[in-house]
Amino acid sequence: MDPLTAGNTRVKEARKLSRRSVRSERRLFLADGPKAVEGALEAPDRVVEVFATPRAAEEYDALLAGVAVTLVEKRAMAGLSDSVTPAGVVAVCRFIDRPLDALMRTDHAVAQSRSGDHRLLAICADIRDPGNAGTVIRCADAAGAAGVVLAGDSVDAYNPKTVRASVGSLFHLPFAVERDPAAAIRAAQAAGYQVLAADGRGELDLFESDDVLTRPTAWLFGNEAHGLPEGLTGLADGVVSIPILGRAESLNLATAAALCLYASARAMMRA
Amino acid sequence: MDPLTAGNTRVKEARKLSRRSVRSERRLFLADGPKAVEGALEAPDRVVEVFATPRAAEEYDALLAGVAVTLVEKRAMAGLSDSVTPAGVVAVCRFIDRPLDALMRTDHAVAQSRSGDHRLLAICADIRDPGNAGTVIRCADAAGAAGVVLAGDSVDAYNPKTVRASVGSLFHLPFAVERDPAAAIRAAQAAGYQVLAADGRGELDLFESDDVLTRPTAWLFGNEAHGLPEGLTGLADGVVSIPILGRAESLNLATAAALCLYASARAMMRA
Repeated sequence: MDPLTAGNTRVKEARKLSRRSVRSERRLFLADGPKAVEGALEAPDRVVEVFATPRAAEEYDALLAGVAVTLVEKRAMAGLSDSVTPAGVVAVCRFIDRPLDALMRTDHAVAQSRSGDHRLLAICADIRDPGNAGTVIRCADAAGAAGVVLAGDSVDAYNPKTVRASVGSLFHLPFAVERDPAAAIRAAQAAGYQVLAADGRGELDLFESDDVLTRPTAWLFGNEAHGLPEGLTGLADGVVSIPILGRAESLNLATAAALCLYASARAMMRA
Repeated sequence: MDPLTAGNTRVKEARKLSRRSVRSERRLFLADGPKAVEGALEAPDRVVEVFATPRAAEEYDALLAGVAVTLVEKRAMAGLSDSVTPAGVVAVCRFIDRPLDALMRTDHAVAQSRSGDHRLLAICADIRDPGNAGTVIRCADAAGAAGVVLAGDSVDAYNPKTVRASVGSLFHLPFAVERDPAAAIRAAQAAGYQVLAADGRGELDLFESDDVLTRPTAWLFGNEAHGLPEGLTGLADGVVSIPILGRAESLNLATAAALCLYASARAMMRA
């Protein structure tokens, strides 16, 4: 069969998934590029369809072995991919976020390999940049967290830039979406987590708090520009700041999150 | 005087500084937005000219007090700014990078407040993404480093996206540009630094190396996609990996750099 053109109905319908409103309605999203498609294919029942250019189908034949692939023309692929230089392979996937209460019961990579209750979680409140959200998900995965909650007015987890920045971790790490950040905080506390807010004005120094960090911890991260509102830091069990030793005023959100999550992982591994 | 239009010669000349070749030739660059302009104005002799829209001149009157400001129309500003939503204030600045040997003699924020030789440095080899370069500069500043070397085929430090991502740290933290990464490594070693390469295959675990990390350290970070070539890791005094506890394959460059630089800062502060 000839590769489908950009005008083909299936291609056009898939292309609509670049819009958040259409994704939310159909509960489908696009996983773009070999890393994301590899992550998606680890649980094949969440993959609805795989599109590839003839060239990419050849290049990624090991990845796509045994998978039904719909061949599309290069121009059709350009419409499905958010990338400036599309890798040529895109999967249409079912939504994979979990209910908040299911996430709170999820096991934890550090806990699995250690004695004691060493669960780790990240709650993002009002994170707006899709790249930041994806990077936080990737870091939380790397640090052995049990999951991530995208809370409040946070960016869509299924934004193509978020999926790409997570480099597969969106498929590895359980996550939940919760409109009300306060509800996410309370659910974490009810599940036995202490909630630590990351805030430059925090009274606890991240590098002097190992005794606190060994406890099951849900980190709370705020908006890139405005940080956390007082209403949320007030709900946290502690407010932690990262020491700034030079003249920078602050750190960007993704690097701050990496430092907090890894400080917890390190303290837990040594406990 | 009426605000200058986009067709004005001075505006057109300044606008050319969005091109790397013109920046390199004139040794001038653009600092875009209030944070960058504030950083630039800390040493007024490096500022050649400040452009602002009438509205921004009013909004940032405290920042611009005592500064000769050239008013420009909104459309002229759009041509000077790399931002989608220009803040309305841009400074034309002289290049501020230092010779490599001067950088190697620079004092260090951690060292200044502690006994012992606790110098910290970052060497970026072939970092290609301007946002990453700016974020590494910001993190190095926050972690109390003495400076940054942009080595090899790294992105231009004066790229507008790099300047913006550094959030002022480009003006606070001394940096050098060196075409040959091996020369940067050797200069750091000659200045008494141990060079630690950050590499996923490293034999040293970042979180089990505090005794090593207390020594004066120049961290070596490689390209986003390809990492460090063996020719460079072979010159390092040690190769350090960040433990991955979950299922992520790796961390992105800027978060990895933040973890390495802060692990050093933490170890030095406790030594």
